[in-house]
Amino acid sequence: MVVKLVALYQHPDDPEAFDRHYREVHLPLAQRMPGLRRVEIARVTGSPGGSSPYYLMAEMYFDDAASLQAALQSAEGRAAGKDLMGFAGKIVSLHIAEVIQQD
Amino acid sequence: MVVKLVALYQHPDDPEAFDRHYREVHLPLAQRMPGLRRVEIARVTGSPGGSSPYYLMAEMYFDDAASLQAALQSAEGRAAGKDLMGFAGKIVSLHIAEVIQQD
Repeated sequence: MVVKLVALYQHPDDPEAFDRHYREVHLPLAQRMPGLRRVEIARVTGSPGGSSPYYLMAEMYFDDAASLQAALQSAEGRAAGKDLMGFAGKIVSLHIAEVIQQD
Repeated sequence: MVVKLVALYQHPDDPEAFDRHYREVHLPLAQRMPGLRRVEIARVTGSPGGSSPYYLMAEMYFDDAASLQAALQSAEGRAAGKDLMGFAGKIVSLHIAEVIQQD
């Protein structure tokens, strides 16, 4: 079953510096994780009722839960995790989810 | 630019009743929204560190922001929204996001 790692980022204090680090440093590190099949990055613009606490969401797809765990434990996964905690540790939450329906 | 409506559900008190209503009533209502291009439903299983506050996430994709707004304001969108508030109003949050990268 396809599994994804979902990173939800709340609004950063300095969006410009965040965007630059995310694009130039963090995403390239994350994309080196072994077994990563697909990435989808989305900029949160609000909610139907107004604002959202979130600023950015990133979804990283793997073939199965074992592949995701292996990626997190790899040198590349640990490097991406270390970078993440450094530039966004206070505003990011990570979630693991099984894709149960796609159509 | 492709836009998605993201529904994040926290853990329901009665997961079995939630799953049944979601699958049998809510998802069919949501899928009637005009302009809906794709749906992805994922069951959150935890986080790399342990647990997640979320139980389920649903992403509904539209061609652009105008299509999403039209869907929300349609009779079908209002019916889905009314049902959502009835069975999950206390545990759901909705977010709108622009897909800025896919690969």
